[in-house]
Amino acid sequence: MPTMKLSLLETPCLILDEAKLERNVARMRGHLDKLGMRLRLHVKTAKSIDVARRVLRSPDDPITVSTLKEAEYFFSHGLRDILYAVGLTPNKLDHVTQLRSRGAQLSVILDNIEAARSVAAHARTAKDRIPVLIEIDCDGHRSGIVPGDPLLLAVGRTLAESGCELRGVMTHAGASYNQDTVEGIRAMAVRERDAVVHSANALRAAGLPCQVVSVGSTPTASYAEDLTGVTDVRAGVFVFFDLVMAGLNVCAVDDIAASVLASVVGHQRDKGWIIVDAGWMAMSRDRGTAKQKIDQGYGMVCDARGKLYPDLIMADANQEHGILALRPGARVTLPDLPIGTLVRILPNHACATGAQHSAYQVVRGESDEIRATWPRISGW
Amino acid sequence: MPTMKLSLLETPCLILDEAKLERNVARMRGHLDKLGMRLRLHVKTAKSIDVARRVLRSPDDPITVSTLKEAEYFFSHGLRDILYAVGLTPNKLDHVTQLRSRGAQLSVILDNIEAARSVAAHARTAKDRIPVLIEIDCDGHRSGIVPGDPLLLAVGRTLAESGCELRGVMTHAGASYNQDTVEGIRAMAVRERDAVVHSANALRAAGLPCQVVSVGSTPTASYAEDLTGVTDVRAGVFVFFDLVMAGLNVCAVDDIAASVLASVVGHQRDKGWIIVDAGWMAMSRDRGTAKQKIDQGYGMVCDARGKLYPDLIMADANQEHGILALRPGARVTLPDLPIGTLVRILPNHACATGAQHSAYQVVRGESDEIRATWPRISGW
Repeated sequence: MPTMKLSLLETPCLILDEAKLERNVARMRGHLDKLGMRLRLHVKTAKSIDVARRVLRSPDDPITVSTLKEAEYFFSHGLRDILYAVGLTPNKLDHVTQLRSRGAQLSVILDNIEAARSVAAHARTAKDRIPVLIEIDCDGHRSGIVPGDPLLLAVGRTLAESGCELRGVMTHAGASYNQDTVEGIRAMAVRERDAVVHSANALRAAGLPCQVVSVGSTPTASYAEDLTGVTDVRAGVFVFFDLVMAGLNVCAVDDIAASVLASVVGHQRDKGWIIVDAGWMAMSRDRGTAKQKIDQGYGMVCDARGKLYPDLIMADANQEHGILALRPGARVTLPDLPIGTLVRILPNHACATGAQHSAYQVVRGESDEIRATWPRISGW
Repeated sequence: MPTMKLSLLETPCLILDEAKLERNVARMRGHLDKLGMRLRLHVKTAKSIDVARRVLRSPDDPITVSTLKEAEYFFSHGLRDILYAVGLTPNKLDHVTQLRSRGAQLSVILDNIEAARSVAAHARTAKDRIPVLIEIDCDGHRSGIVPGDPLLLAVGRTLAESGCELRGVMTHAGASYNQDTVEGIRAMAVRERDAVVHSANALRAAGLPCQVVSVGSTPTASYAEDLTGVTDVRAGVFVFFDLVMAGLNVCAVDDIAASVLASVVGHQRDKGWIIVDAGWMAMSRDRGTAKQKIDQGYGMVCDARGKLYPDLIMADANQEHGILALRPGARVTLPDLPIGTLVRILPNHACATGAQHSAYQVVRGESDEIRATWPRISGW
């Protein structure tokens, strides 16, 4: 096969710098190894077996999925220990037992009595001891049972006395994304740990099993200092990182491994605009940095090799058009980028931008060579 | 094949009400017929041949695409007259001539001398008289040459004296999406028309050809009253409509044909939250109504048959979780939706929400029957 060049790709497309991916993985691995924690990779960011293989040490390593389609896909590639981390609905029960009957060690989560009864009834009918984690609410962010709520034991008993396996507890500190200091993130990591350890102890004190005690978010996983009592850590976005994570000081901008390659299609010189052929369809509509200290618009702009242009951001976007402009107050001049110039845009949110693309074009550092094309899945 | 039921679908998924689609198409067709205008359907909203077939009267009808992948897909389904309406970049020239050599009557757009030279040089080398429209800027919204700018004739001459075919001019009143009155939209329709008619006349006065004079956006197409001098109208989102269009009074909420089916997975009763299994991945991150008079969050919530719950919106979203809540100031009480209840969420922006899904589950009115599954494409 002839060598493919980045400079010859049709734009827009998604670029992945394998060297940065490896560096990000090594850092998270090093940190969790030091804490004695098992990583249960969240595959919802990359949705790619090729990326997962660069994180997992063995096909027996556990993963977390956000859809049953991810479960199907990664199971078809030989991964078996899979946690589906969205509260289970009755219309997915058949799919869950069908995946399990084919050999997937799929576990599920829920946070209420009705769901526990529904899963328990299905488990009895299907003669399948579906493993269930109870979701704990550590930060009021979304779902889960607040530590100390007697509902925990009621749900635990409903599961344990039925045909299910009560496997443990899990939580996700979604509010860690809203912290504006590293101290805030560290405090969230403590809160995340305490919430599940407290809940695990409550279950055990009531004579109920609780083998798994699971926490996870990339910010808390990155800054946790003591996870005593926890058994596994779920994190996903750290493989690529993004501008939201950089805004939280969870990574440097230079760590961001995924970017969107675009071409200059026009100029509106009187307005200070450079128009490119990547809009919100290629970047996603995610504006996660809008509520951070520095609003990066739809992304920071680099040249084709990944070197940042000072203060140049994608200031606005239409479906297939992006408007590049200097950020307000910038003291530099707009770079001269002729028609056809290639740029790379760093995303606000890697999960959202990745989802707009069907593959990664894999590069290594500043080389023009496309080393591989890794497919990724989407949908449900 | 057994009849599929909406109530048995795994969630989330994308629902399309065929009756509303037909009604929306008939209304736009009726309006454009009255104006004597040819519709050049923009297929970027639906990206589905099945939807396009319900709009087009013949395979000879013209379409507009936003990506060359759409051009490939619709051409493979027998449509030939295709306008690619994003400024052409050098890295797409080979793809354009390759599509044309296979029989696609593909035309392209550009708004500057460098691009004109690049297309002209390629046309000569490829011995392919690529038809080109010059993009006109009618509203300062994005791209194009401002009417009266001498650049128009320079670009026109560069094209006409080269191996290309200078076919005409086109514009898109993107700013029509920011109007807050019908009068404002009508004024934009006049501005859109005047900008291209003025530019067409300037080209003709200079002895240059200008066969096509094209305008388009769903708001202006819906409210235009006189398009004298225009030859075709491009519009796309009218097939489904959405909450942004309803906020502009371009449609009623009841006209919105596409919605996301979701299941209730949990409750946070003290917060007044209902958690569902459709988050921003299923809805998109589009928050287009945030800058309108009524902010609809991530969408308005209906029951499984499509009937609106008063004042219930998706107030926030994570990747695979949506938080339903009453809008601020609502005087109703939160509906009691048990675990597993199906709801349908109307999208802010049909183009963005559609792009998150690989197919439409087609229903008709309030029936539970899934009449068909129509695939849709995405990516580049």
